[in-house]
Amino acid sequence: MRKFTYEQLHQFSNNIFAAINLNTTDANLATKVLLSADLRGIDSHGIARLVGYVRLWEAARINSKPNIRITHQTPSTATIDADAALGLIAAPKAMEIAIEKAKQVGTGWVCVNNSNHFGIAGYHAMMALENNMIGIAMTNASALVAPTFGKEKMLGTNPIAVAIPAGKQPPFVADFSTTTAANGKLEILQRKNLDTPTGWVQDENGASTTDANILKKGGALLPLGGDREHGSHKGYALGSIVDILAGVLSGASFGPWAPPFPAYIPLPQNMPGKGLGHFFGAMRIDAFAEAAVFKNNMDIWIERFRATTPIHADVKVMIPGDPEREAEADRIVNGIPVVDSVFDDLQKLAAKFNIPFC
Amino acid sequence: MRKFTYEQLHQFSNNIFAAINLNTTDANLATKVLLSADLRGIDSHGIARLVGYVRLWEAARINSKPNIRITHQTPSTATIDADAALGLIAAPKAMEIAIEKAKQVGTGWVCVNNSNHFGIAGYHAMMALENNMIGIAMTNASALVAPTFGKEKMLGTNPIAVAIPAGKQPPFVADFSTTTAANGKLEILQRKNLDTPTGWVQDENGASTTDANILKKGGALLPLGGDREHGSHKGYALGSIVDILAGVLSGASFGPWAPPFPAYIPLPQNMPGKGLGHFFGAMRIDAFAEAAVFKNNMDIWIERFRATTPIHADVKVMIPGDPEREAEADRIVNGIPVVDSVFDDLQKLAAKFNIPFC
Repeated sequence: MRKFTYEQLHQFSNNIFAAINLNTTDANLATKVLLSADLRGIDSHGIARLVGYVRLWEAARINSKPNIRITHQTPSTATIDADAALGLIAAPKAMEIAIEKAKQVGTGWVCVNNSNHFGIAGYHAMMALENNMIGIAMTNASALVAPTFGKEKMLGTNPIAVAIPAGKQPPFVADFSTTTAANGKLEILQRKNLDTPTGWVQDENGASTTDANILKKGGALLPLGGDREHGSHKGYALGSIVDILAGVLSGASFGPWAPPFPAYIPLPQNMPGKGLGHFFGAMRIDAFAEAAVFKNNMDIWIERFRATTPIHADVKVMIPGDPEREAEADRIVNGIPVVDSVFDDLQKLAAKFNIPFC
Repeated sequence: MRKFTYEQLHQFSNNIFAAINLNTTDANLATKVLLSADLRGIDSHGIARLVGYVRLWEAARINSKPNIRITHQTPSTATIDADAALGLIAAPKAMEIAIEKAKQVGTGWVCVNNSNHFGIAGYHAMMALENNMIGIAMTNASALVAPTFGKEKMLGTNPIAVAIPAGKQPPFVADFSTTTAANGKLEILQRKNLDTPTGWVQDENGASTTDANILKKGGALLPLGGDREHGSHKGYALGSIVDILAGVLSGASFGPWAPPFPAYIPLPQNMPGKGLGHFFGAMRIDAFAEAAVFKNNMDIWIERFRATTPIHADVKVMIPGDPEREAEADRIVNGIPVVDSVFDDLQKLAAKFNIPFC
């Protein structure tokens, strides 16, 4: 495992995005969104995915000169055709529109079709914070998850992010997949040759298993809850809501027809919509309450929850966003770890485009 | 266990609400919302709670002649002071305002403070359906749930409901608490003297237990996921988001300070806001897409998910809302079951107000 500075990875990522014909502004934006995952400790969604985006571009599934445009709107809503843009570009542009609409009428809600993987949902939701708004971001994704009682993979890990500003306290930032565990957690176990806990995955017959490689053998991730007795129907409902708002409502593809991220997997046949879909929301705090009062109450909320009597003296109750903030504080100073397989991918990318890697 | 017709319970509930001084319109509305729970098979939130509402009125915590008013608004938002109204009245009035705003600017978002228990979240979300809108409803509630790593009860079961119209298919209606199991599920096990599955509750030391009576002994419900390894931090985040949108944003009380439903439990000291809080949303389908196209795609979504290959041939994959629709179809014909303890409560209510019970 090597470590690189944020600046090193930033330079390289920027150069690669330029090499696949993004203009300077878009390359910078895509890099910033991509690396926000590495900074926040969500390694599965950062620089590790750079080679995947390049492969999608090579397969002509990503358009580096997109015409991202609003196709439908009202004062508080818009629907955007991303024209096969990088999700890393389409998503922040859509969130900007949501924020602009919220400035005008209190809230803004924007769904996007014809897009692809947008990095971490948290980045986009957090764009609202500096505008004194609550931000919401969701995306559908290719199907890895079986619904309760089902054997087939029907839903993506379909994350939800909600960012809420506070006063003196740092913001509340929840960003989570609607499964018991996201695919990135499985990949970590695969590299270490470890089993999963029960309740994370099932095999091709729908039986419980702890095989971290089961997705390659016809298995599926399980919705948050794991099984019916432990509320998996709620995780299934949550993942479905994300699929419907981000996919069906936007005009993107959805359910088992959501396009895959790996370029070597063919697109599903008879896709009912265009590309992946996202859904964003921005709500002005002062559209509901005096902002200073709300922020003070958020501080009270955060301080009280942090002060919850812990079960074990050495493990405190956290606020959503705490682990990611800790990762960011560490990595901006001490560098971003890059595992060997990702390092190999980046070196091959460097060679392919004749760009020096760090 | 006895059974009563919807009409019998409707008449009695109406008479009781009239006896605590609601006007005819409000009594009818409160009854309709309350009994929608019994019809949909969510017995914990229906006629079983009638005596609880009466006790809150006797304790002067419910105002039967409220002045429900907007205190803050923008074109797409409003904040409402419910003036200690029955939540059964305040919630549908707030949802109506959300729907009116959506008619004007595409979406409407309304939060409510100074309220109390609003019945089932699904009723309010479903109000959007007949307007070709997606409906959302959330409420905070008195603290029964420990956050991940915590010993104290800090959050309510904080439900989320999302109702989405389809075309030929019935609507998608998700309505779920953000815990592994809601309190009503514990009550059923208590009556049958059965243990809970693991992952539902913890004892006063935060240790795992299967004692269905543990809440009375200092224990707590667990967030959806159960423990950290199975994603309880996600359930904790979801419950927190509901508490913040419904409670903090609205100006209601929140977290461990949310007021209790049982009138014999004193109000928390130093409440940071007024009463319980709710949050509602209405989004016009045609603010994002052509409604006919969306509804057709929802039919495709629902039909495809229903057709998921099942694990066992005798248990099909369901769509959120299916079990409640089945309950309603049965109960409207065959009557609504009332367990003995609820029957006793209703008889005492009848005697107290000198109103015949069915």
